[in-house]
Amino acid sequence: MSKQLATFEANFRPLINTYLTENLPKDVDQSILSDAMAYSVNAGGKLLRPLLTLAVLVAAGQSEIATGQLRAASALELLHTYSLIHDDLPAMDNDDLRRGVPTNHVKFGAGMATLAGDGLLTLAFQWVADNDLPADQKLALVNALAVNAGPSGMVAGQADDISNEHHQLALPALENLHRHKTGALLHYAVQAGCIMAQTTPQETAALLTFADQFGLAFQIYDDLLDVTSTAEQLGKRVHKDAQESKNTYPGLFGVEGTKTRLAEVVAAAKTALEPLSQDSQLDVTLLTAFLSYFQIEG
Amino acid sequence: MSKQLATFEANFRPLINTYLTENLPKDVDQSILSDAMAYSVNAGGKLLRPLLTLAVLVAAGQSEIATGQLRAASALELLHTYSLIHDDLPAMDNDDLRRGVPTNHVKFGAGMATLAGDGLLTLAFQWVADNDLPADQKLALVNALAVNAGPSGMVAGQADDISNEHHQLALPALENLHRHKTGALLHYAVQAGCIMAQTTPQETAALLTFADQFGLAFQIYDDLLDVTSTAEQLGKRVHKDAQESKNTYPGLFGVEGTKTRLAEVVAAAKTALEPLSQDSQLDVTLLTAFLSYFQIEG
Repeated sequence: MSKQLATFEANFRPLINTYLTENLPKDVDQSILSDAMAYSVNAGGKLLRPLLTLAVLVAAGQSEIATGQLRAASALELLHTYSLIHDDLPAMDNDDLRRGVPTNHVKFGAGMATLAGDGLLTLAFQWVADNDLPADQKLALVNALAVNAGPSGMVAGQADDISNEHHQLALPALENLHRHKTGALLHYAVQAGCIMAQTTPQETAALLTFADQFGLAFQIYDDLLDVTSTAEQLGKRVHKDAQESKNTYPGLFGVEGTKTRLAEVVAAAKTALEPLSQDSQLDVTLLTAFLSYFQIEG
Repeated sequence: MSKQLATFEANFRPLINTYLTENLPKDVDQSILSDAMAYSVNAGGKLLRPLLTLAVLVAAGQSEIATGQLRAASALELLHTYSLIHDDLPAMDNDDLRRGVPTNHVKFGAGMATLAGDGLLTLAFQWVADNDLPADQKLALVNALAVNAGPSGMVAGQADDISNEHHQLALPALENLHRHKTGALLHYAVQAGCIMAQTTPQETAALLTFADQFGLAFQIYDDLLDVTSTAEQLGKRVHKDAQESKNTYPGLFGVEGTKTRLAEVVAAAKTALEPLSQDSQLDVTLLTAFLSYFQIEG
């Protein structure tokens, strides 16, 4: 990992975590629900999505993050956490381990876990809308979040995922599934940064191409880890994709073929940023460094 | 029912239904998910919440409803439908009949029903934000919807409800539960009308007092029907509150005591509107007529 990325993470991960810990309880009016929501939000996630948003602001030359920007970026972690809680439910993937601890429904029951997810999803929209950003930015964020997280984005991907278990998809359908299921929220993470940094249309287009390749790399890497890691390393159950006959890259290309595909996608993400290092005021070295998350041993 | 209310329903219920039927599929990018969402949205709900919103606009003198207002009002039906789908899930109330037809999870499975709810909740925010209303109204709607539907509103009430089964609550705690669980969304229905009609602070305060008494009456009436009706009449399972040891008014006051309480609350709702019929430009006869929904036989 680059020193710049390490410093960025060391600065901003605690900032987001503190924001979440301090502010989440203020907007929950039932004690068990509050505990259930906080349990998963504070479970030590990597905060990749809000960090990506803030990295776009840093790329645009911001050294300080405004309170409204921090609130809007943190909202994305609320939304991501909801998606994990619902995804883990017995009615969905039925996982009992996440980030090394029992999943929300194991701890609080499936009913309360459903509500914790519903609460986090709704609160994400509240945090995006009730902050001191300009009105046009807030509305653009609400719209982009709904489009990417909702039934034309992430929820469509989840529906595709559970509908196609035990049914091998060809590559175009698999990429469509992943673009929705994992890609849409990473797309939004970068888009939220563009909205708040007020990047030019050219810059936004390049950054969103980067985001989409980044999202694809993320899913391919996640598929690979499921095959090649232990539960101790991942903090969640492994080899579950095969057990549940999920559609994955290793299922389609094998492990070696998947590693090759990952390298290609990471290269495409890097290439997408290159015009910006010449033709714009943006400093894309930090965003480029995010691609180091996808390094495979051996 | 008053002739004015019957005419209003005959005009606006088909308008909302047509809007929902035509526009819902445009924002869903997965076919089974689209079917699951449409199944419950088009199941013949009474559309009480969007009708209440539009009734405030009519009270303010509007004879025509603008497209953006119709979209924002219809969003509330998306949100209400999500709450019913999740409430019916096996992990929650485990109901298999709703509006006379199988519940969403009976038809599509609990996983897809969870996603249909998630999709409707997210899409509600999209519809409130991407329409031709002024930006300040849209942001006010997003905020009010999140506060009333989320973990400080309806979701808190649901959490209270499932946490207190088999545990008799005293009246203040029961009213707090109902204010969140049922009241918050009816509060928002009227508030959304106030935002779009740009009512004065005094008018808004009176209308929201009406909304809160209306919400209380709604829950008391719902509790009564569960005790006194048949499944054929209601299109859903009856006597389930007692079976599940839910906290209800009849459980606390008996049927006759509950009828007395209902009459008191309906009277309070009516009283809340009275100053408006003297001191404002609003015509509250239509809103007053909504209280006829709570008539008990005998």
